[in-house]
Amino acid sequence: MGLHSINELREMVEEELLSYLPEEETLSKSVRDAMAYSLTAGGKRLRPVLLLASCEMCGGLLNEAMPFACALEYIHTYSLIHDDLPAMDDDDLRRGKPTNHKVFGEACAILAGDALLNRAYEIMLGAMKGFKSVPAKKKIAAASIIAEAAGNRGMIGGQIADIESESAEEQGLETLQFIHSHKTAALIRAAVMAGAKLGNTPSKSGTKQLEVFGEQLGLAFQICDDILDVAGDEKTLGKPIGSDEKNQKLTYPALLGLEEARAIYGEIHQKAMEALAPFGEKAQVLRGIAEEMYNRVK
Amino acid sequence: MGLHSINELREMVEEELLSYLPEEETLSKSVRDAMAYSLTAGGKRLRPVLLLASCEMCGGLLNEAMPFACALEYIHTYSLIHDDLPAMDDDDLRRGKPTNHKVFGEACAILAGDALLNRAYEIMLGAMKGFKSVPAKKKIAAASIIAEAAGNRGMIGGQIADIESESAEEQGLETLQFIHSHKTAALIRAAVMAGAKLGNTPSKSGTKQLEVFGEQLGLAFQICDDILDVAGDEKTLGKPIGSDEKNQKLTYPALLGLEEARAIYGEIHQKAMEALAPFGEKAQVLRGIAEEMYNRVK
Repeated sequence: MGLHSINELREMVEEELLSYLPEEETLSKSVRDAMAYSLTAGGKRLRPVLLLASCEMCGGLLNEAMPFACALEYIHTYSLIHDDLPAMDDDDLRRGKPTNHKVFGEACAILAGDALLNRAYEIMLGAMKGFKSVPAKKKIAAASIIAEAAGNRGMIGGQIADIESESAEEQGLETLQFIHSHKTAALIRAAVMAGAKLGNTPSKSGTKQLEVFGEQLGLAFQICDDILDVAGDEKTLGKPIGSDEKNQKLTYPALLGLEEARAIYGEIHQKAMEALAPFGEKAQVLRGIAEEMYNRVK
Repeated sequence: MGLHSINELREMVEEELLSYLPEEETLSKSVRDAMAYSLTAGGKRLRPVLLLASCEMCGGLLNEAMPFACALEYIHTYSLIHDDLPAMDDDDLRRGKPTNHKVFGEACAILAGDALLNRAYEIMLGAMKGFKSVPAKKKIAAASIIAEAAGNRGMIGGQIADIESESAEEQGLETLQFIHSHKTAALIRAAVMAGAKLGNTPSKSGTKQLEVFGEQLGLAFQICDDILDVAGDEKTLGKPIGSDEKNQKLTYPALLGLEEARAIYGEIHQKAMEALAPFGEKAQVLRGIAEEMYNRVK
């Protein structure tokens, strides 16, 4: 098939990610350092790898897709930095390392987040002017998919709903689903859809199947996070468990109990895998990503 | 000449600005409200008006330029919200009204800023897919000019240098010039340059002249702010004067004294006006904007 493996794609992302940072300027070095710190703080690169795998499955070129993959990771990273701020979730640790504002201070962390978000668009706009084998029209469409998923109708909308959601008891499943589908799933779905857009976009029904895959994978990812916060291993996770309960966060385990949450997790994973069926062998890498995610312990 | 006046352009911006807000979603209404609050908090619309005037002077179409003008105001507004945060300048008032975080809380203000920045790019990407009388290539170039000016090599780079700058006594003119040219002038220069790009871009020397105009206008704007903070009228300004001195901010009056700062202000204004000379009558609106700014008292 000539498809790259998950590990190959992940290595490519690791190799390229920092090359998209802005050049250093003496007087704003600390922001650049803060950006690099969080970009290299041990993420799994789920979103960029998904984008690349989706693009390659649809017959696209990895070098054309790479700027979009990295831009997506910049957006994801900015959202983590801002979410960890004292005024938001007030977290001291992420992936076993001190959060950005703990190292660089709050002002610099806010600006590093802003800079990562802005840089993501600089990268995508740069790509629109670059290689010509993918027409600008497709790149504009891919960037639009990512931009919408990052905005009010996606990640930011989910984050504010999350912050404003009262304790689990006072809120229902509907709010929880809104939060999950917006805060986390939107960007993961966008990774799959933008990748396909940069390749030879599949038929209407194929596109629909990919959208279902992305949406279910995104939901599964968030439920897994919720479950690990209850039943995970602190050492493996690199952060204390039980923080959702402490913060009275609305989660699947809190709302439905751990067993029911695990059952839903299994169903959602199943739906994601079924959505890939029409793509046959070509979807092996996407399938592998979903399996890897399903079995993750951190 | 058929050029629109400053007031006409300003009214057009006022009419269009909120139309680019995302649709309301019940669960994230507060972020949208917070965005609208700061967008309508009485700004002078300098940047969008400049972009439109520059575009029209270069023979461009206002309806094609409007999304970019509004996107620029969204970026400017996000930067004000984040600059006012407790971790940054910690300001309670802006233009006589409580700052965003005072009304909506810190978490919502951070997210509203993020949302405005992200929305700016959604708007520009949407415009690339829209009307066809200006080719996508020009729109990509205009968005790139704005993105670069908003990022590390522009506004964000200037803001971090500003925050990290020690008291005026310990820092020199070089740092001050870096801060002014990046923090404020970059976005004002980008307004002029992006507007020209969306029209019939002038000759190489014409483009250079416009760049000088934008840069000098941007520097004059910031020096004027500094001077007003020392010698302005609190009631007219809508905020207490003397805050720069209290915060030991690096400013022209602090570094060189008020008289010398005023002299430099006059020289810079003069340079801006001279840069417009080659455009003759066509530059009357840009000239008017520079004059209005030079004489501003708030």
